[in-house]
Amino acid sequence: MDLFEAIRTRRSHRTFERREVEPEKIGAILDAAHWAPSPANSQPWEFILVTGEKSRRRLYELSEQAKKTGRVEVRGFSYVRPLPQGVAEESGEDVALRQYSLAFLKNVPVIIGVVGLPVSPTQQRGQETYDSYKYSCGAVIENILLAATALGLGSLWFTLFNQQLLRQFLGVDPSKHLVALVCIGYPAISAPDPGRLPLETKVRRLEI
Amino acid sequence: MDLFEAIRTRRSHRTFERREVEPEKIGAILDAAHWAPSPANSQPWEFILVTGEKSRRRLYELSEQAKKTGRVEVRGFSYVRPLPQGVAEESGEDVALRQYSLAFLKNVPVIIGVVGLPVSPTQQRGQETYDSYKYSCGAVIENILLAATALGLGSLWFTLFNQQLLRQFLGVDPSKHLVALVCIGYPAISAPDPGRLPLETKVRRLEI
Repeated sequence: MDLFEAIRTRRSHRTFERREVEPEKIGAILDAAHWAPSPANSQPWEFILVTGEKSRRRLYELSEQAKKTGRVEVRGFSYVRPLPQGVAEESGEDVALRQYSLAFLKNVPVIIGVVGLPVSPTQQRGQETYDSYKYSCGAVIENILLAATALGLGSLWFTLFNQQLLRQFLGVDPSKHLVALVCIGYPAISAPDPGRLPLETKVRRLEI
Repeated sequence: MDLFEAIRTRRSHRTFERREVEPEKIGAILDAAHWAPSPANSQPWEFILVTGEKSRRRLYELSEQAKKTGRVEVRGFSYVRPLPQGVAEESGEDVALRQYSLAFLKNVPVIIGVVGLPVSPTQQRGQETYDSYKYSCGAVIENILLAATALGLGSLWFTLFNQQLLRQFLGVDPSKHLVALVCIGYPAISAPDPGRLPLETKVRRLEI
């Protein structure tokens, strides 16, 4: 598929067919992920491939558990307080989080855990602000989503999970960071186009 | 261009022809950038388009200045101490940084400043760990690099600059984060293929 078509037609899918994804397609997606750019080609990422029904169900249970106790992360943001009991107290984000159904996780044919590796040569200086792996993992995930799109698959960049619980389940060392679970499968329904703000509101030309 | 070809043939270019980049190609690249995914379609990014010779030269001067004083950032890592004077004291990274020539900046036809917007609805909770914009900006930059590749252009994900100096020059509000300068132009020479570690060293299958 043409690059620009892949970029423009990628959508967030949550409803998948039961059909398995062909191993060669999974291989092509992982290869595309691995060709993302990184500082000095440091390749600060790893992948965990999850396909079994038992493991999918466990991922669902762990995510539900995290949601109920309010200890979840949304792309690096941690909800550390329990979700409010009373509706009157709930913010829009609380409501959205509570109502966000995770049941689809049980039926995702392929889940790719993307793990970021914060360690790099320059980090030996003892700085703690080194987070280049996050940008690189963003590029990695975009490659996964685009590759899936080009292969006729639907995908979802999923981050609504508890870092500690899932790290333990997936066997991720505490020195590493579980960045996302990317869900992949044949879409059962079409996903909406959320649109974008007008491009001109996002671009400024430097005039000097 | 086919998506997978773009992903596999993207390279880091530092030597460009003097030829200008057509405005419609710049537009297509910015549009591709803007179609990156983000949490709840929050689109936490902005772009600054830099094309003038005067501004390129100023970017070069500011980057050289930052390099000499050792106050530069490399993808989120800050070098906060001055570079050592004596060669014996220099680490491999210091040498690499000192020897890294920035002269190419003066001849880059197009530079796109990618600005991340850390503010989001969920951030109202006062958490400071919210950094989802970094992942989204990684996806944005990958789209820029891939779009440039597909249009026959070379590109470079450049981050060797001082955040404060460049923010001031480019007019970026302190509440925002200048994530990268993406350099774009027609490549004057071919760029090397840095290769990747074997994919199988990066992938693990969850067995349960």
